[in-house]
Amino acid sequence: MTLGTVSTNRSHGGTQGVYTHSSAETGTEMTFSVFVPDHEPGEKLPVLWYLSGLTCTHANVTEKGEYRAACAEHRVIFVAPDTSPRGEGVPDDAEGAYDFGLGAGFYVNATEAPFARNYRMRAYLEEELPDVIARSFPADMARQGITGHSMGGHGALTIALRNPARFRSVSAFAPIVSPLSCPWGEKALTGYLGPDREAWRDYDACALIEDGAALADLLVDQGTADNFLESQLRPELLEAVCAAKGQKLTLRMQEGYDHSYYFISSFMADHVAWHAARM
Amino acid sequence: MTLGTVSTNRSHGGTQGVYTHSSAETGTEMTFSVFVPDHEPGEKLPVLWYLSGLTCTHANVTEKGEYRAACAEHRVIFVAPDTSPRGEGVPDDAEGAYDFGLGAGFYVNATEAPFARNYRMRAYLEEELPDVIARSFPADMARQGITGHSMGGHGALTIALRNPARFRSVSAFAPIVSPLSCPWGEKALTGYLGPDREAWRDYDACALIEDGAALADLLVDQGTADNFLESQLRPELLEAVCAAKGQKLTLRMQEGYDHSYYFISSFMADHVAWHAARM
Repeated sequence: MTLGTVSTNRSHGGTQGVYTHSSAETGTEMTFSVFVPDHEPGEKLPVLWYLSGLTCTHANVTEKGEYRAACAEHRVIFVAPDTSPRGEGVPDDAEGAYDFGLGAGFYVNATEAPFARNYRMRAYLEEELPDVIARSFPADMARQGITGHSMGGHGALTIALRNPARFRSVSAFAPIVSPLSCPWGEKALTGYLGPDREAWRDYDACALIEDGAALADLLVDQGTADNFLESQLRPELLEAVCAAKGQKLTLRMQEGYDHSYYFISSFMADHVAWHAARM
Repeated sequence: MTLGTVSTNRSHGGTQGVYTHSSAETGTEMTFSVFVPDHEPGEKLPVLWYLSGLTCTHANVTEKGEYRAACAEHRVIFVAPDTSPRGEGVPDDAEGAYDFGLGAGFYVNATEAPFARNYRMRAYLEEELPDVIARSFPADMARQGITGHSMGGHGALTIALRNPARFRSVSAFAPIVSPLSCPWGEKALTGYLGPDREAWRDYDACALIEDGAALADLLVDQGTADNFLESQLRPELLEAVCAAKGQKLTLRMQEGYDHSYYFISSFMADHVAWHAARM
């Protein structure tokens, strides 16, 4: 495993890096960013994963997420992966739409042609990248948390619900809580997994909870002025299944906030503190 | 005066807006951003001006500056203007260089053809935009501070030194302290003002202090890993003239920090707090 360094910048009493590596899972070069607060030689710090939303790369949250001050204060490593494989030969949406294909991997292992070879973001994040992080950074992999935004909130919730022992803390910003129940999800999961909706349940936070998956607790922030609230995000579905199954959930409806990084950055320090207290 | 609203987003307990207006000084449409923390009806808040560096618009600091949390906490309005006139008919550097013309107005009133008509950023910031801010936002214009980065640090220092009664507080991030003494400054001031270097002194912080201008005090942060430190920024010139003239200066050399927004954002909250304590 060779890690390439794209850039490192000193910031907020730590090092913000951007790195590339050759992924066996996706068959592509993958780029991700890592912030490491200053620490003692040999010391290991807990790791907070942040999964990004549609159209994003690692760069959006790295530039606009305002997580570094809080991560330095709480001494947390922050890892931001890309949202899909990219590069020559990686198939995209036939019409280049923003909500499928490049930038829209939906954190699945695709089974449909022509996506099955490269679109393996689930395996990439559940198996391959954690190993890269553990080998290359001063990361205490016994203390991991995960969060994400929109499609990345969906990714964070489903990865955590399938791997509850790996994460001590889980949160999300404006997550897609049920791809089975919204147009973004129906389009993406049809394309990546085919029409059998039973196969989708492994990639649907509400279905996973309904089927018995559970977490210690869960924090979700959702803006009330989010354009996608009613059609795509539907936090009421998560609230209902959590209530039915006794899953602890803190759902905070944030008055007037939208779907942008102006919203995410406003509550990022809260989320970092919430994870730090649990990791 | 008509103000156009490009966007408003709720963020950090306030409103981040981007606005346009038709500037008589520059003869162009000008875009700027304003963050207004939540406040009581009729209440007026102090105003912190932030002038950006070469190649930037209002957008760089608005997206990457990490000022909103601190401005909301200290209840400070944050105004980020553009760095030059823009639009059809506005002359640019003959070869499209990044350090002259569009995005590189150097906060002067140009006297040389063909720049004299549009490149009036000094008058825009000293006369026109403050009036727009006073009329359109809940701004207490008796409580103003100013800061900026690189070329914008030069702008902040020189505008403050020429107008000490207007500002209660002045700071800068990695400022160009003496355009008379660096390649960026020599190129820009020759182009905008002509070859008579006496005419440049009004746009040189070190020369203004040497000629008797004074401020209550001054905070400057400068990264030691800044690529432009020795050739262009030269904080030692500011340190020397402040020492010679008894000008109070806090110059903080920040170990390992570079010239980017990773540096600026790391110390932005410090600067906002420093201004808030004085405004």
